[in-house]
Amino acid sequence: MNVTSVDIARVAKVSQATVSRVLNGNPNVSEEKRAAVLAAMEATGYRPNALAQGLRMRKTSTIGVVVAGITNPFYPEALEAVGKQLERVDQRMVLWDSDRGGEDAALDAVRQGLVDGVIFTSVSEGSGTLDEALRLGAPVVLLNRGSADASCDQVTSNNFEGAAEAARYLYQIGHRRMGLLGGPLVARTARDRMDGFLHGLRELGQAVPDELVRDALFTHEGGRMCIRELLDLPDPPTAVFCVNDFSAFGAIDGAREVGLDVPSQLSVVGYDNVAMAAWRSYQLTTVSQQLDAMAGRAVELLLRRMGRQEAPIRHDRFAGALVIRNTTAAPARQI
Amino acid sequence: MNVTSVDIARVAKVSQATVSRVLNGNPNVSEEKRAAVLAAMEATGYRPNALAQGLRMRKTSTIGVVVAGITNPFYPEALEAVGKQLERVDQRMVLWDSDRGGEDAALDAVRQGLVDGVIFTSVSEGSGTLDEALRLGAPVVLLNRGSADASCDQVTSNNFEGAAEAARYLYQIGHRRMGLLGGPLVARTARDRMDGFLHGLRELGQAVPDELVRDALFTHEGGRMCIRELLDLPDPPTAVFCVNDFSAFGAIDGAREVGLDVPSQLSVVGYDNVAMAAWRSYQLTTVSQQLDAMAGRAVELLLRRMGRQEAPIRHDRFAGALVIRNTTAAPARQI
Repeated sequence: MNVTSVDIARVAKVSQATVSRVLNGNPNVSEEKRAAVLAAMEATGYRPNALAQGLRMRKTSTIGVVVAGITNPFYPEALEAVGKQLERVDQRMVLWDSDRGGEDAALDAVRQGLVDGVIFTSVSEGSGTLDEALRLGAPVVLLNRGSADASCDQVTSNNFEGAAEAARYLYQIGHRRMGLLGGPLVARTARDRMDGFLHGLRELGQAVPDELVRDALFTHEGGRMCIRELLDLPDPPTAVFCVNDFSAFGAIDGAREVGLDVPSQLSVVGYDNVAMAAWRSYQLTTVSQQLDAMAGRAVELLLRRMGRQEAPIRHDRFAGALVIRNTTAAPARQI
Repeated sequence: MNVTSVDIARVAKVSQATVSRVLNGNPNVSEEKRAAVLAAMEATGYRPNALAQGLRMRKTSTIGVVVAGITNPFYPEALEAVGKQLERVDQRMVLWDSDRGGEDAALDAVRQGLVDGVIFTSVSEGSGTLDEALRLGAPVVLLNRGSADASCDQVTSNNFEGAAEAARYLYQIGHRRMGLLGGPLVARTARDRMDGFLHGLRELGQAVPDELVRDALFTHEGGRMCIRELLDLPDPPTAVFCVNDFSAFGAIDGAREVGLDVPSQLSVVGYDNVAMAAWRSYQLTTVSQQLDAMAGRAVELLLRRMGRQEAPIRHDRFAGALVIRNTTAAPARQI
């Protein structure tokens, strides 16, 4: 027997609109009516998984996006790219800031059926939020930051290879003493870019001494403080690779504060290629991310997942490209 | 008699923590305990202040925030400030980007009761969204950008006076030929800052020639293009006032592109005092906004409005302060 919402409305003695509101997770239903509808579902043999499916399939036309560190200029650009792609497919974007309880808010929205899916742009490995979202059956895609063992679709840059290319480039133009301004290790992007940079150097018989590796926290202030420390060493580096542009701007500003010229006295390479990297005052050499293409793929994978829960899991990696501008040059002194 | 939460806990026979949870609108309280606390409040004559009442009345614990132009570094900072204030009162923040259908999404969320109130940070005068939100009875506060005839609470900088101060300062250090890089006229901030700058000069017997007034669109690229045009004129300005920092960075970069030194050959003043204004590569002279205090007031007014729909409408203006850094100096040539 194929039970419909008409049957449920009749048994529960409520309007069809009320049944639909309960199915859609709309909060504007009294608890009594809601209970009646749920009881009627049980009585008529309307299976609980059908409810779950209804909730899953229903069209809120809204996709949740979770970001962190929005004062890092990469994230506004990522949001703009995702927003543009969602607009193309007529979906609305709602944002949460994971620095401000956004992950819990996103989970609540999933539980209440207020969004059809979630894009995490800055997931921390081991945070638990992602696992919980997946446990709730929410269509989820990771964009930008991946997670090694998450069983969900992921769209990232090939961060390892991009950073290795930066290493080869700095070596090729003559640098032999290089620093590495990394980021928080819970961020997969930071780890892959650090690993890739070190791997690229290792293949050339080079290494980064421990004293030249710092955690610049993905921020301008972090980059600025770290470069000041490195430049205070008896034997400072002639070049630094920063795992994101935001900290690279800080490294440039920190070097300029102590009167050093970039690039003739210090070369700086970033990662992301945000708009600001092209601005005259920085002209940063960096590794680009194909943000528009990545955002497009993330939305595509999310829609596919919303339509077919059991589709095979994909992790798509987009190649980066080294963009050489004016913060890199041969070192003034050879070591 | 001064009733405290201790008295209420005793009368309601619940813990003080429970009273505090009810006052804070924390959903982790059973309906019975919540009712007992509310009854005890009434019995003891406890008159919650508007803030507490606002918190008690809310249902979703979620406040919507609408922004535009998130790649302008002012907005991520504004969001961070608002997010911090909402966290303090245990409210969640959900964001919409009005460049990506966010105003409609915000209205839908109001209609569906998914948010308890909305903070608009970048309302355009005459857009209709605000009127519609007010018509729906939503508690609304305008932050940053006000609107002349909107009947809702507003928290803005005293943009007119801040810009007038910038005008007086540029005059005082010797500038007599000044440009004005304005913004879209639908933005109240742009209009007030332009008016204030022109007014400040007028009081000193100065004017900005029409050929030196441009719309830099609030963006880096806009500032860059506009300054290039002004510098191409037979008689270029010796200083420019930009209605926001983002376009001021563009003006600096545009000047540097043609080999001009800032400030010895061109002085630049911005507005907002975003974090980037203090970065070494810019060190921008600008007018600060008291963003944390403004965000705090906006949240306070919103909670008050949530608690008492008929409270008198307020428009609070916060004074700005001229922050003199290194993009301003006496003009090289006196005209």
